[in-house]
Amino acid sequence: MSIRIGIYGYGNLGRGVESAIRQNADMEAVCVFTRRDPSSVKTLTGIPVFSTDKAIEMVNDIDVLILCGGSATDLPEQTPKMAQYFNVIDSFDTHAKIPVHLKKVDEVAKKSQKTAIISVGWDPGTFSIARLYSSSILVDGKDYTFWGKGVSQGHSDAIRRVEGVLDGKQYTIPLESALSTVREGKTPEFTTRQKHTRECFVVAKEGADLNKIEQEIKSMPNYFADYDTTVHFISQKELKENHSGIPHGGFVIRSGKTGLNGENKHVIEYSLKLDSNPEFTSSVLVAYARAAYKLNKEGICGCKTVFDVPPIYLSNKSREEIIASML
Amino acid sequence: MSIRIGIYGYGNLGRGVESAIRQNADMEAVCVFTRRDPSSVKTLTGIPVFSTDKAIEMVNDIDVLILCGGSATDLPEQTPKMAQYFNVIDSFDTHAKIPVHLKKVDEVAKKSQKTAIISVGWDPGTFSIARLYSSSILVDGKDYTFWGKGVSQGHSDAIRRVEGVLDGKQYTIPLESALSTVREGKTPEFTTRQKHTRECFVVAKEGADLNKIEQEIKSMPNYFADYDTTVHFISQKELKENHSGIPHGGFVIRSGKTGLNGENKHVIEYSLKLDSNPEFTSSVLVAYARAAYKLNKEGICGCKTVFDVPPIYLSNKSREEIIASML
Repeated sequence: MSIRIGIYGYGNLGRGVESAIRQNADMEAVCVFTRRDPSSVKTLTGIPVFSTDKAIEMVNDIDVLILCGGSATDLPEQTPKMAQYFNVIDSFDTHAKIPVHLKKVDEVAKKSQKTAIISVGWDPGTFSIARLYSSSILVDGKDYTFWGKGVSQGHSDAIRRVEGVLDGKQYTIPLESALSTVREGKTPEFTTRQKHTRECFVVAKEGADLNKIEQEIKSMPNYFADYDTTVHFISQKELKENHSGIPHGGFVIRSGKTGLNGENKHVIEYSLKLDSNPEFTSSVLVAYARAAYKLNKEGICGCKTVFDVPPIYLSNKSREEIIASML
Repeated sequence: MSIRIGIYGYGNLGRGVESAIRQNADMEAVCVFTRRDPSSVKTLTGIPVFSTDKAIEMVNDIDVLILCGGSATDLPEQTPKMAQYFNVIDSFDTHAKIPVHLKKVDEVAKKSQKTAIISVGWDPGTFSIARLYSSSILVDGKDYTFWGKGVSQGHSDAIRRVEGVLDGKQYTIPLESALSTVREGKTPEFTTRQKHTRECFVVAKEGADLNKIEQEIKSMPNYFADYDTTVHFISQKELKENHSGIPHGGFVIRSGKTGLNGENKHVIEYSLKLDSNPEFTSSVLVAYARAAYKLNKEGICGCKTVFDVPPIYLSNKSREEIIASML
């Protein structure tokens, strides 16, 4: 019997989950829940669409509900609410607020005897796992996380709020010089500017003051002021043709020393190069949905993180097969 | 109270374990067990040395025994034997024989209520974990493992068995062309020759036929015949000065597609660059010794692999601290 997945929210992430489920023979996508008018939403694979109000009526039809909303306002409310009724997975990514979110979801899930896994994706997610393994192994060391080259949604939004800007896209780019320093096993303290640069592709409104836009972007506090930022003005056509993807990726690199006098250096590197940030995140969500299903079957309830889940729970294969083919 | 570790076998791996334990504030190295005359063995940090016969008398002094013998003859016998009395960790690395070894150790450890974790290190070990995570996430894909640049002990031994050879060292080197093809997200079928080359540094006996040695090495079945092999003749002094380290490393790269029609490509890469192969392996063994200790305290017995252990068990930090700082 398949693991029956419900998709709660149908943006890029929800669509990614829907197509990721098709790659997993042991799973089936039951339906999508939306806050929009369900009749206005057409799914990629033709699965039915219901109003979020109807979700609770479907507790017996769904094994795991994957929450595909945003971290700012959706998930802090939706995950604890839905954990009353379902095993749930979310991609809550506001790092500083994870402990509070975890506590809320844990209380609910323990009461309802459901299994929740939060902050699933790549950062937080597989990058977090890389940081934990490598720091547990190379105890005397230091790790670095670099992001990109990739599109930052938040920074692209910030550009679009600048007066005179019609549209825009921002890429975060790790500095090669910083990457190679860390790969050599050195452990410098970088400034923000030394780790990443930011590149903006901007479509200006007709007659707008380009110089003013560029200065305003480059001096924007938190978003751009601490970085070397490049601004390119391009046409809407060019933006659409060359910058409509949502690529991303990055690097987690830890270097450390071993030996009685720290005489030997080691470097552990984990990296991702993603054509589609939301589709990769969705693929991670789906693997952890399988884990939540298995954990719940074993009676393990409450709110978990990627740190708590044995890697073997993510796979569709049997333990014997995994050990024989991958160990 | 510290986790008390016993070290069973005192070669490169045993010494690596001894110095790795010094980097972990929650652990202490109790003693070394050796098959040699204990009075002939001097430890790096001055911990006592006992005969392996005495190990069983120390069940109350040791929380986890790390087995530092070889996979060919030592571990198949030692791990099941010691799992009768201790929580044990080994680095059994004969991939094809792991299922049989696992079964034997599991039967013993379940009976004795001990926790064993076998095949710990980097391959098998962290490379296996990388293969499992990445294949569970990118279901529609293919992974590749490359080794090196690094010293292969088995191949170096093979060189030294050739007539006329006094000493020698062999490096396994991944082919850049293969690495970059895979990093682009392509999924070719490589021949053995297309993935790695082998480079040998050989010290010949006086008057030996160098041409004959070179041909014999290059045509050696299993070891060299299927590879492009380079042989350099050097002096014993040069070998000692430039090739006395035991560096190693490698890459696990998986590429896969997502999207309803597989339109987006993704690449996950995990890599290691190690100055000392045995010291890195030892650091992994020590982290899993902590995990075995914790699992056993929770009553989880039997033989486990790196796939079965939640990453959080490897760390010395509290769950709260790990979640706040690494997720």
